[in-house]
Order: sequence, then C-alpha cells, then structure tokens
Amino acid sequence: MKKPVLVFDMNETLLDMSGLDPTFARIFGQPDGSELRKQWFTLVLELFLTAAITGQYRSFDKLTDEALQMLAAQRRRKASADDRAALKEAQGKIPAHPDVQPALARLEGAGFTLATLTNSTAKSAEKLLEFAGLRAYFDKVLSADAVQTYKPAREAYAYAAKELAAKPARIVLVAAHAWDIVGAMATGCEAAFVARPEKVLGPGSPEPKYQADDLTSLAERITADYR
Amino acid sequence: MKKPVLVFDMNETLLDMSGLDPTFARIFGQPDGSELRKQWFTLVLELFLTAAITGQYRSFDKLTDEALQMLAAQRRRKASADDRAALKEAQGKIPAHPDVQPALARLEGAGFTLATLTNSTAKSAEKLLEFAGLRAYFDKVLSADAVQTYKPAREAYAYAAKELAAKPARIVLVAAHAWDIVGAMATGCEAAFVARPEKVLGPGSPEPKYQADDLTSLAERITADYR
Repeated sequence: MKKPVLVFDMNETLLDMSGLDPTFARIFGQPDGSELRKQWFTLVLELFLTAAITGQYRSFDKLTDEALQMLAAQRRRKASADDRAALKEAQGKIPAHPDVQPALARLEGAGFTLATLTNSTAKSAEKLLEFAGLRAYFDKVLSADAVQTYKPAREAYAYAAKELAAKPARIVLVAAHAWDIVGAMATGCEAAFVARPEKVLGPGSPEPKYQADDLTSLAERITADYR
Repeated sequence: MKKPVLVFDMNETLLDMSGLDPTFARIFGQPDGSELRKQWFTLVLELFLTAAITGQYRSFDKLTDEALQMLAAQRRRKASADDRAALKEAQGKIPAHPDVQPALARLEGAGFTLATLTNSTAKSAEKLLEFAGLRAYFDKVLSADAVQTYKPAREAYAYAAKELAAKPARIVLVAAHAWDIVGAMATGCEAAFVARPEKVLGPGSPEPKYQADDLTSLAERITADYR
C-alpha cells in the first residue's frame, strides 16, 4: 500500500509550549506562567480564526505579539517593548515534546515522507525546528503564510498538498488541535489526533483515522498499517 | 443627523454569563464555576469560528453542548445526560448586566431603533430576552442561524442589514467581543465596544467608533452624538 505523506502541525503538537512558561511568569511577575501561557494561546487562536474569517491577514508572528498585548490589557497593564522582545526571543527556543524525535526517526526509517504545516511563518518554523533538533526529518517546512491564510482554512491544506505533490487523500495531518483536524478533513485529508495535555476532539466533528495519546503510539500504528 | 440602527450582541454584551457559574460549579463539583464557565465559552468560540471557516454549520445551541462535553473530556470525565440538561436549562435563564435595561430604555426613549444579532438561535434569543425583561426594547431579534453561519462572517452582518432595511454603514454593532467588532467593521458597519470584564480589543485591528466601559456611558455618548 502506498505510504501517505505525514504532515505535522508544530505548535503544541511537536513543540512543548510550556517552554514559554518562565517567560510569561517573568513578564507578569507571577510564580507560574502556565495559565498565562494558555490564555495567551487562546487569544492567538481567537485572533487567527477571526482573521481567517474576515480576511484580515497578518503574520502569525505578529498575532502572537498582539495576543501578548491583549493578555496584558486584560490585566490592566501594558506589555512593554522589553516584554514583547522577551516573548519573541523565547518563541525561538521552544523544546520538542520528548516523544517527538524518536517517533520522527522511526517514521522516517520506515520510509515515510514527513513535512510540517504551520500557521507560524516558514522563517520562524525553520528556526524552531533547528533549535529543537528536528529539521533533518522534514522534506518540506510549509507555512500557511505562503498563501496568506491560516489553518483551518482549506487554502492552507490545499497549498501543502500542492507543494508535496500529493492528493489531499494521501496526506495525514498530524495535530493536537481539534480545529486543525476538522480543517484537514474538510479539505479531504486524512488526520491523526495526538492528545496532548487538555487537548480533546469535539463530539460533533468527523472522527480522524488515528487517535493516539502520544507520537510514540501513533508512529507504531502508522508503521504497522503501511508495513 | 439620521440616527443609526443599534444592533446588540447578546452573550456577555447584554447577558451576564456569570449567571451560569453555579451550574458549572455543580456539574464539576467545584466551589466556584467561574473559570470553568470561561473555559467553556472559549471552547464555544473555538467551535463556531472553526465551523465558520470550514463551512460545517450546526446550531450554536448544539455547539454549546459540544463544548460542555469537551470541557468534561479535558478533565477526563464524561458530561452526563443530566449535566447537559442542567446546562441547557440554565442557559435559558441568564440575567442581564445591571446597566443594560436603563441604557436600552434611554436609547429607545431617544428614538433609536434597537435590534439584536446573536449566534444563538432566534428561539433561544427570544427566550433569553423575555427572561431578562428586555424583549420589548428590540424591533428585531436576529440570529446568524437564519443564514446558517456565525458572526464574524460577513453573511451574518449582511443578513442583519437586510432585515433591518439599513445599509451596513448605518448600523452600529454593539459588542463586548473583539472578533465581533472586527467582523462588523469588515462588513462596513460601525461598531461600539463595551469593555465587559477581561474583554479587550486587539491592537492590530481597526478602532471602532465607540469604546465604553459600560452601556451607561455608551448610551450617553450615542445620544449626545445624535441629539
């Protein structure tokens, strides 16, 4: 059976965003930045989903900065230039989840073509993958920025399919986000959900082909399916 | 100067969603349901924004139930049929913020035409406005459900403009949500932001004509502008 192309979401799926917690803790003068980081990511999500609907594109990197300013404003303070620079700096150095490197090595070893598709800019994605030591596993590092939209818009997945010279049905989008799974499947891709902490699928959406607790078990199942 | 038509968002803008806190506290066996209710509303937001982008419409009322199931799944439990019925029941009985009734009375007294535009179904909206004692102030109770989409999609505001027989530029959308303000303005409406608790505008979006801390001061400013 012809192997699918495996296309990975990056933020949260591959990268452990809790690596940003100390930065949020420092910016807001709190002992633990975990809740702040989650609220920030929720604001990022709200911003890019809204921008996708209203057609007001700006880069994801810019949106993450806007979300920091909103997070500060919610707490009746301002994000200073230093705060914003600190987050930007930290965003270039997010570690991978511990299961990522072994899973990618296994999938690559089994002959799968691997790529990423992120809402972050390609430049940021390249930098992050280098930092996390993952760059070598991927044939292509793709960003929805190239077509000035964001996942889960159809155009993002269609762009990836075109760049990978694969029909959508031959792509498996691997993500920890329900909205990304929904978007990929709506475009005709297969999907694999990785249940990172607190991530769940919506009960009203189509079920993806794969659901796994981590990339280790996902890699096992995919390699078994296409042995 | 010809008066604009004032179109109000309902959830959070008119209605005080903290009225749901005791229900969330009870369902999840916690002393305070406030954080749970906020996380639930974030999931609702994620679901309808995603559905708007991917074209997978289902009613907002259904999405609020899906979000409850996701909130439970995030905590590794199931929302029972009783839990879901309890939330549905509570959703029919959400009180208005205390500034709403006096502000609407003042605006109506000053000769403005008032309407609502919500993502909730029209049936739910009618029920909620009756419960909150606000129904009589509104000429029309409109829901994006009528055109099978959600704000901030252009079609939602365009539908309201058509129903109100007003050009978008003659509509002021009043909302506590940045995404709603963005959507209204992208469609050519004017907008008024009401800064309900923790609600802020995004720094990368166009500024609405009005920004106010509550409906009392907004009503003052609008009536002064069109005296």
